[in-house]
Amino acid sequence: VRGVDATPERIIVCSGFAQALTILAAALTAQGVAAVCVEEFGYPSHVRSLRASGLETTTVEVDRDGARVNELGAAGALLVTPAHQFPLGPTLAASRRLAAIEWARTQRGFLIEDDYDGEFRYDRQPIGAMQALAPERVVYAGTASKTLAPGLRLGWIVVPPALIDAALEARRLTDGPSAIEQLTMAEFIVEGTYDRHVRRSRLAYRRRRDRVVAALRAAVPEARVAGAAAGLHLVVDLPPGRSEADVTARALSLGLAVEGLDDYRLGERRHQPALVIGYGTPPEHAFGAALNRLCAALTAA
Amino acid sequence: VRGVDATPERIIVCSGFAQALTILAAALTAQGVAAVCVEEFGYPSHVRSLRASGLETTTVEVDRDGARVNELGAAGALLVTPAHQFPLGPTLAASRRLAAIEWARTQRGFLIEDDYDGEFRYDRQPIGAMQALAPERVVYAGTASKTLAPGLRLGWIVVPPALIDAALEARRLTDGPSAIEQLTMAEFIVEGTYDRHVRRSRLAYRRRRDRVVAALRAAVPEARVAGAAAGLHLVVDLPPGRSEADVTARALSLGLAVEGLDDYRLGERRHQPALVIGYGTPPEHAFGAALNRLCAALTAA
Repeated sequence: VRGVDATPERIIVCSGFAQALTILAAALTAQGVAAVCVEEFGYPSHVRSLRASGLETTTVEVDRDGARVNELGAAGALLVTPAHQFPLGPTLAASRRLAAIEWARTQRGFLIEDDYDGEFRYDRQPIGAMQALAPERVVYAGTASKTLAPGLRLGWIVVPPALIDAALEARRLTDGPSAIEQLTMAEFIVEGTYDRHVRRSRLAYRRRRDRVVAALRAAVPEARVAGAAAGLHLVVDLPPGRSEADVTARALSLGLAVEGLDDYRLGERRHQPALVIGYGTPPEHAFGAALNRLCAALTAA
Repeated sequence: VRGVDATPERIIVCSGFAQALTILAAALTAQGVAAVCVEEFGYPSHVRSLRASGLETTTVEVDRDGARVNELGAAGALLVTPAHQFPLGPTLAASRRLAAIEWARTQRGFLIEDDYDGEFRYDRQPIGAMQALAPERVVYAGTASKTLAPGLRLGWIVVPPALIDAALEARRLTDGPSAIEQLTMAEFIVEGTYDRHVRRSRLAYRRRRDRVVAALRAAVPEARVAGAAAGLHLVVDLPPGRSEADVTARALSLGLAVEGLDDYRLGERRHQPALVIGYGTPPEHAFGAALNRLCAALTAA
């Protein structure tokens, strides 16, 4: 994996990030961690998972430089999406990365670097993983869900030495992916087919993102698109006066499923009304029509 | 599944019994269960899994009629292998089945029926699942690990209504098997190929068991084979004076991996020295040689 400091005995292959989080929760608990800080917007299932594992959760604010990592309070670990904050979109600034590493080192905290779409950066080279800066404090988590398919349920974590024994035991006790698919994936990687697929996909998704941004700019100029040119989704701030419920209902009536940003709110602080738009899913032949529906949902009175 | 009372909304497909147990531990805890009783011999990883999920475990004795289910103490659930106790081999007697159901109904307890090799019964028709007698109190757990391959990591549980919501949430939070393999398996079943494969395997494994029993009887007449004619393993009591460590070391020196029964002891009570012999694994061309090594390990002074 791109810029990750890994030895085979610290890599755990798992059924995706959901299982990874369960495994890591057990390992963190064994290291005395009681609370994990998450970014103020993200997947509610991550919070439910951490809590189901007996951990408390806190949230940290996210601004245009990513998570405000100097405000981590008493948490013993931070779950963070540095390459492309999910869903808001900023990249964690270099100074914030260093501050997070510094926090982990001095406070004996752990970082979980969720690199969910790290292969898809469009405006420049992918940024190296934070994990390489402090492999003894940072867990790297990667997945095939975006590069291949979420239905594959295949992911991997690179685990610091302090967490590896407990993580391996938790992995054993919670099962994992099929050996057949692990071997298929390994062959796919070794043959170079995976790399070619990722490069081709990067180009295709970049074109999709450009189309979405151009269409929105033309049809709904007052709807601001935020975040880095990366990944398979973007967040668009709604035009003044429109609510998330309004727009998602209108989109649904047009046959389009989009989500309001508030569905991803994990903390108290609200964001201005916005949509989270995934552009990876529609088949190519249906993409133009889906885009038209999106613009129609946003412009409808 | 054979004789199971299931509606689609109560079936959860998972990555095998390890994940099933994690899911069920969460659901049982949500129902106020604090302790799970396990059979006095079985998989240590099951006990570790239950404890890692915050449950206490107790053990129940097993005799030739299976688990002594009238001695469950204060446990809120029983994990049981009624078709073919693992590893000792007895089938849970009809009166014990009824007593277990009665216990579950009157004490509001739950049974987890681990039907790990229920497809492989050789001396008569498979016994119906206990689950059908009390689908509101019994979880049925099946797996493709024995019928197809453990590396597939594919299993399923049928969950009582009282546990289903918490089990589904736990399943979501701990991931699960690939959609590709679930769909492949479904096609395999619908086409009838799975059934044909199971029937063919049953015959092949039956022959293997007969060969093991005959070889042991001829070479080591004082080594008693216990348990029902079923499954992919058997337990053989060692000849007087031989220890498990002796015989397993001797087998290993001959290139054969067998396990001592004591490795599966979960309670205080010891069994007389015995081996747990899996006969499903060796390829057909190597089976005769493996059997010769087994007999040599058992007869060596």
